[in-house]
Amino acid sequence: MCRWLAYSGTPVLLETILYKPEHSLIDQSLHSRMGVETTNGDGFGVGWFGPEMRTPAIVREIGPAWSNRNLREIAGHVRSHLFFAHIRASTGSAVQQTNCHPFRHGRWMWMHNGAIAEFPRVRRDLALAVDPRLFRQIEGSTDSEMMFFLALTLGLEEDPPGAVARMAGLVEEVGHEHGVEYPLQMTVAVTDGRRLWAFRYSSQGDSRSLYYSTRVETLRSLHPGMSFLQEVSDDTRLIVSEPLGDLPGVWNKVPESSYGVVQPEGDALMPFTPQAA
Amino acid sequence: MCRWLAYSGTPVLLETILYKPEHSLIDQSLHSRMGVETTNGDGFGVGWFGPEMRTPAIVREIGPAWSNRNLREIAGHVRSHLFFAHIRASTGSAVQQTNCHPFRHGRWMWMHNGAIAEFPRVRRDLALAVDPRLFRQIEGSTDSEMMFFLALTLGLEEDPPGAVARMAGLVEEVGHEHGVEYPLQMTVAVTDGRRLWAFRYSSQGDSRSLYYSTRVETLRSLHPGMSFLQEVSDDTRLIVSEPLGDLPGVWNKVPESSYGVVQPEGDALMPFTPQAA
Amino acid sequence: MCRWLAYSGTPVLLETILYKPEHSLIDQSLHSRMGVETTNGDGFGVGWFGPEMRTPAIVREIGPAWSNRNLREIAGHVRSHLFFAHIRASTGSAVQQTNCHPFRHGRWMWMHNGAIAEFPRVRRDLALAVDPRLFRQIEGSTDSEMMFFLALTLGLEEDPPGAVARMAGLVEEVGHEHGVEYPLQMTVAVTDGRRLWAFRYSSQGDSRSLYYSTRVETLRSLHPGMSFLQEVSDDTRLIVSEPLGDLPGVWNKVPESSYGVVQPEGDALMPFTPQAA
Amino acid sequence: MCRWLAYSGTPVLLETILYKPEHSLIDQSLHSRMGVETTNGDGFGVGWFGPEMRTPAIVREIGPAWSNRNLREIAGHVRSHLFFAHIRASTGSAVQQTNCHPFRHGRWMWMHNGAIAEFPRVRRDLALAVDPRLFRQIEGSTDSEMMFFLALTLGLEEDPPGAVARMAGLVEEVGHEHGVEYPLQMTVAVTDGRRLWAFRYSSQGDSRSLYYSTRVETLRSLHPGMSFLQEVSDDTRLIVSEPLGDLPGVWNKVPESSYGVVQPEGDALMPFTPQAA
Repeated sequence: MCRWLAYSGTPVLLETILYKPEHSLIDQSLHSRMGVETTNGDGFGVGWFGPEMRTPAIVREIGPAWSNRNLREIAGHVRSHLFFAHIRASTGSAVQQTNCHPFRHGRWMWMHNGAIAEFPRVRRDLALAVDPRLFRQIEGSTDSEMMFFLALTLGLEEDPPGAVARMAGLVEEVGHEHGVEYPLQMTVAVTDGRRLWAFRYSSQGDSRSLYYSTRVETLRSLHPGMSFLQEVSDDTRLIVSEPLGDLPGVWNKVPESSYGVVQPEGDALMPFTPQAA
Repeated sequence: MCRWLAYSGTPVLLETILYKPEHSLIDQSLHSRMGVETTNGDGFGVGWFGPEMRTPAIVREIGPAWSNRNLREIAGHVRSHLFFAHIRASTGSAVQQTNCHPFRHGRWMWMHNGAIAEFPRVRRDLALAVDPRLFRQIEGSTDSEMMFFLALTLGLEEDPPGAVARMAGLVEEVGHEHGVEYPLQMTVAVTDGRRLWAFRYSSQGDSRSLYYSTRVETLRSLHPGMSFLQEVSDDTRLIVSEPLGDLPGVWNKVPESSYGVVQPEGDALMPFTPQAA
Repeated sequence: MCRWLAYSGTPVLLETILYKPEHSLIDQSLHSRMGVETTNGDGFGVGWFGPEMRTPAIVREIGPAWSNRNLREIAGHVRSHLFFAHIRASTGSAVQQTNCHPFRHGRWMWMHNGAIAEFPRVRRDLALAVDPRLFRQIEGSTDSEMMFFLALTLGLEEDPPGAVARMAGLVEEVGHEHGVEYPLQMTVAVTDGRRLWAFRYSSQGDSRSLYYSTRVETLRSLHPGMSFLQEVSDDTRLIVSEPLGDLPGVWNKVPESSYGVVQPEGDALMPFTPQAA
Repeated sequence: MCRWLAYSGTPVLLETILYKPEHSLIDQSLHSRMGVETTNGDGFGVGWFGPEMRTPAIVREIGPAWSNRNLREIAGHVRSHLFFAHIRASTGSAVQQTNCHPFRHGRWMWMHNGAIAEFPRVRRDLALAVDPRLFRQIEGSTDSEMMFFLALTLGLEEDPPGAVARMAGLVEEVGHEHGVEYPLQMTVAVTDGRRLWAFRYSSQGDSRSLYYSTRVETLRSLHPGMSFLQEVSDDTRLIVSEPLGDLPGVWNKVPESSYGVVQPEGDALMPFTPQAA
């Protein structure tokens, strides 16, 4: 399992979010509170959009995030208005760059926490369901990358929530064919550089934790003394596997079987149900 | 493309073969003479059998062999009577441990130099031909690993030359279906810990170089002063992508479209023809 | 801080000690119970003596031990009668191979848990105390390597306990000159391939944990059902940063300010006091 | 030995300089024409200044540049008006991040090609000459980093050309004391984020190659069809170990024993002579 965060809003140095909070993602790499594993040291990745960037830049490495100096350098010098960060705890698949999140396809970035249950048994059937033109781009061996390519096959670029629902439906169908009771466990973030979607779902109805930050306007009235809140725009939003600290009123659980979208035309939170692919 | 060597015979420190010859494999990692690339710095691997070892030990890394201190340590302290070593020059697939040779399945080790032409286009069809129970063990993204799993699917453990011939036939058939004129280019080494097979073949009839060492008995009479030759047994044999030096009479070309077997019951050199799978 | 173990006795596969115990060193890399940090993921090393080996082989890597496949391969295939293993939690110095333990000089291997307090402040003065001919061999930036080279300078190869006492005395003297109240914190293991010494000391009299295993003869009568104990010789001994499991009667604390020696002529436990260098 | 380039001028994506030229630095990592080694695969680094950056960002890795995906990502997405890039061919010191260039101290960046002759013999004496407050910041084991800390000790931040001259004088003095005939071989680049200095010198008067680009104004009249030249400002300048291609009129040798400065108040080329420290 893993931990991740997604940021959208006022351009900030990545370190503002990745390193500075009390229980930052980097802290979580050593001391996760809500993860299945307390240590997430099997690789990491950051992906960011900047001004004039048509595709996100993605930097991934196989060692732990906590000791990586290049991540520290990038976080201290790169600004972004929309970025993903992910720390990995492998549950068996190889520790290699192509298994690190986020994954990318054109403008699209994808990251995941969770698992396809008994992935080795269902991997081949899922691979067959990937569009043959996309199949050749699969480089790693994770369930997470497979989910991304299935979602792309099923229309991610036109209808993200629908494609993710069809991907989840397909994973459950194939799992059930192989006698797996609860085939899917996931929190997923995906973006095209403009909008950001985050999904929380598991076949068992007992999904990994996922939180979104309260509206900045509300936070300002709750915490009038926090200068950081004065500097960020009203539409700034964070979605995280676990809260970055204990500040009251900041973090809200994404409900079971639901998804949110962060976008210029207004954020929204909606129910999520897998669909037949 | 890549360079490799396979050793069978009197137990020696790996460094005797890997580092000490004039134009050793480590030297070839920086200055290959016959390879498609002069530099082979995209990972390496060694696999060895020792006394009482039922499976080979395999150490693989993603950096260049020439500067790797752990390889130097292992080579200077481990003895083996049967070992493989491989240095990699990636032609596009990721530089990651699971793409480094040798590959292993139980007692079996496999390494390869060459390529399946236009592998991204044919990869999916070849993947479908792998036994589903084996498919789940594929960890990397190379044509070389795919060839190994196809050969395993097609009977490698019972009939190595036949299985490799069927694998080659299948690769050519699938390639032709995709309009590839010359689908396969390969030199392959494979062992079960007792016997060692080496294949040289390409669809175009213009295969990568492969050499085997002259019988030790003959070498002793050619080079009576070489103490190394006094110390190794008569059945010691090396198969290499390119000669480890310029000593006259030592190296013999493996002919086009042929394979050799090194085994206790006597070595042999035979023609190789792909077969319908 | 770090965790380590030292083994001397019947030749075993390294994995017997490194991976198989309930709370093995590999488990400790993720879940140390007694270490200053619970995670020891900033590199690792193993060093072993085998038959006919005049120097130990040392394999060190900068990633976590728990996910390292090469360590798993080596541990599963290499036998040794005398070996060290170390997992590192950096307290600031760079995560690099030359900062991983064990360190080697000829036949001698050294590993350490602890710290020289305020090392950046005293580092230069300590470096000046190293024999100029040895100074050029310092490759890393840790206090641990510096302690090794100071001990070598002060006679480690002739009188290990005396040299370590003089090294500790020097570190305390230099520390006090710089106003450091408690300059030294250490558990150290050192071997020449025949004997093995382990030291536990700290200026404050509050040293990191260190344990040695009970005599095999006694363990056999305590745990008559354990087959492992039947297979190892009477002189087999383990020294560890923390117990490898909860089996009653197996582990004994090395007392404060003392050292032990494991050797063919009989093991011994003695008091340790720093000496003027 | 190594290869490097320094860029100052119109902000560009790093890839414009690092990857796109015919004989780019990345190409030189595999096929250097003028280097002592044709392969420079023992680590690399880039350091860049961007808008609002008070210190440069520095990303360094230990593998080859040619296969590094993170370097490709950064180069394709980061713009800079002043950056350094370096590819390393180790002549013996460890392949580790702290031995990769550029080195940094506050706003200052430093990179080097060449060597202090017989560095192991003179290393200790040179280390003693480093300001004790700076000594503690030395993390690696290269002559290049030592030269940087000596130059800092000798006034780099106040008088760069003078400090480098005194550093060179000291290296020669210490070398001669140890019986070294030609103690120093160097091309060095150093910047404070505003100005950029480049030095070419060797004790033997036979220095490694160094080139600077012709004034953009002149190049435009030489190559009126090159669109790149229309886009960059008149003060854009490149300094490189070897030309990035064969375009006539672009590259000029930095003369023996001289240095250049690139700065807003006008570039200049001057003689360089070591001075007594």
